[in-house]
Amino acid sequence: MSEPRPDTEFDLIQRHFAPLSAAETGAFALRDDAASLAVASGHELVITKDMMAAGVHFFADDPPGTLSRKILRANLSDLAAMGATPRAYALGLALPDKLAPGWLEDFCAGLAADQAQFGITLIGGDTIAAPDALTLSLTAFGEVPAGRALRRSGANGGDDIYVSGTIGDAALGLLVARGQLEELSAADRVALLARYQVPLPRTELGQRLLGQASAAIDISDGLVADLGHICSVSQVGAQIEAALVPLSAAAKAACSATPSLLAHMLTGGDDYELLICAPTEAANGIVQAARAAEVALTRIGTVTEGAGVRVLAADGEEMRIEQGGYRHF
Amino acid sequence: MSEPRPDTEFDLIQRHFAPLSAAETGAFALRDDAASLAVASGHELVITKDMMAAGVHFFADDPPGTLSRKILRANLSDLAAMGATPRAYALGLALPDKLAPGWLEDFCAGLAADQAQFGITLIGGDTIAAPDALTLSLTAFGEVPAGRALRRSGANGGDDIYVSGTIGDAALGLLVARGQLEELSAADRVALLARYQVPLPRTELGQRLLGQASAAIDISDGLVADLGHICSVSQVGAQIEAALVPLSAAAKAACSATPSLLAHMLTGGDDYELLICAPTEAANGIVQAARAAEVALTRIGTVTEGAGVRVLAADGEEMRIEQGGYRHF
Repeated sequence: MSEPRPDTEFDLIQRHFAPLSAAETGAFALRDDAASLAVASGHELVITKDMMAAGVHFFADDPPGTLSRKILRANLSDLAAMGATPRAYALGLALPDKLAPGWLEDFCAGLAADQAQFGITLIGGDTIAAPDALTLSLTAFGEVPAGRALRRSGANGGDDIYVSGTIGDAALGLLVARGQLEELSAADRVALLARYQVPLPRTELGQRLLGQASAAIDISDGLVADLGHICSVSQVGAQIEAALVPLSAAAKAACSATPSLLAHMLTGGDDYELLICAPTEAANGIVQAARAAEVALTRIGTVTEGAGVRVLAADGEEMRIEQGGYRHF
Repeated sequence: MSEPRPDTEFDLIQRHFAPLSAAETGAFALRDDAASLAVASGHELVITKDMMAAGVHFFADDPPGTLSRKILRANLSDLAAMGATPRAYALGLALPDKLAPGWLEDFCAGLAADQAQFGITLIGGDTIAAPDALTLSLTAFGEVPAGRALRRSGANGGDDIYVSGTIGDAALGLLVARGQLEELSAADRVALLARYQVPLPRTELGQRLLGQASAAIDISDGLVADLGHICSVSQVGAQIEAALVPLSAAAKAACSATPSLLAHMLTGGDDYELLICAPTEAANGIVQAARAAEVALTRIGTVTEGAGVRVLAADGEEMRIEQGGYRHF
């Protein structure tokens, strides 16, 4: 049983983390037993938590400024899927004995940048000595008008299915990180890797979908698996057309070189795009919301009666998709 | 990069964790992207987070039902130190490949028992594959009347200093867990080990101290270190008398066999008792609060002008105490 040296840990918190809490008085400068958070009248708090570990979710030598942003953004993406406005987060860090010089500075610089971009503030957490590898834990808090949060459970037969942005880039980016896809241009490889390392949560879009979408989820486990989650909770089925799924230029280049990558992209995780269901009558409002949020939105299929997700290939045949993606708690 | 098998993880959540969320509709049966929590009018949310890892904070073969209760109770103790009423918690688990049969059942049975005892409900979390050792992360939420939370910062010169319960049992319990203190009776060893493995957060006492105490903290880093935290944040000093510090029968037996253990007990961590400061005029109210909560409360010293913690031995001489205990984020 050992702990980081007291002075080291206390100094570490006051030097690196306390400045990140300055905008929220209820964080008490990270010097109390807990934080307090006031929730706006008529609103409720939306709470989500993610853990990530070296060797499981990221490479131990990934740049620290991308690691911190990835776990923060993964949580922001969950808040976006509920239509919540980001407020605050608590951070847990299990740190290995040896960190590269400047590692914590870079880790916190990534957080500082994202705090400014997404309007969220550190309010507390815990740092411990890791038994072995770096492990991150983050709990994020957002606000939503009471009872209005977007849910996975409201999809109905006949609803349109939309996705934001482009799909599959992160799954390809992971292949790039592993040294694959060398047939692509350097620019395409960089673009895909960036999408894997630093996703872009659709925060504003989620908020604008409140009262418009019948169901929403963020795509973290893969398009097919996450649509399956909506189907399962809403007790409906879904049919999407692979040819309608929006791909980036880099992903199109990869698919054209290796057509079998398409199925990998439809089932790979880490897109952190929003998957949205909405009745046809709401189509105008959905399009307006995406336009106002300056996010591309593409209709890719239809909610059906029944159960399960069917993916149709360009020739109209049903694609056989292995149950893909991993699931989070 | 690997993840638990999808079905295994999904089933694991629905089988073991979803039942723990049943009392809170905003947990959405752990089947949505996030949870939602409504905060009572005129109240704010109190938020605390702790991480614990095998080999650092506990032994990998500790009983799972004590591990789950220890991390939950450590967080409940932080809520108690703010005077907050427990509401809900989110749980992060990094699980190694191989768990003993029944491990998760026992882990969750411990949570279920404590949920019933402390009136708190699971609302979300994340399970991941651990890179190596078991790591736990827990974020707990309580409610407190807005602006009324107990703080570390309100102590004033002349205030009385109190502690709840008895001090040092957990530090001795850790020695027992390591195979030391064999001179004690078996009953004493069992009692000390239990205090180390399953602390008792002073939830009701904390709530009853609202408006009575000038400052409070829970003793997790050790009595001297945590009193030092109050002094530092409140910009005061403190003087306590070692002879006034309440000890259990088992601790008295240990101290009488080995007097040098006293300093170890004053600086060891994991007591999870409340350390309270209050003006002398409030003494009656403080005593009433402890009586109503059915918790022993003992005055051990006085807040002073200046800075730092002085500990007086029974002979009136100042004890030289090594800066003890570890500090949490």
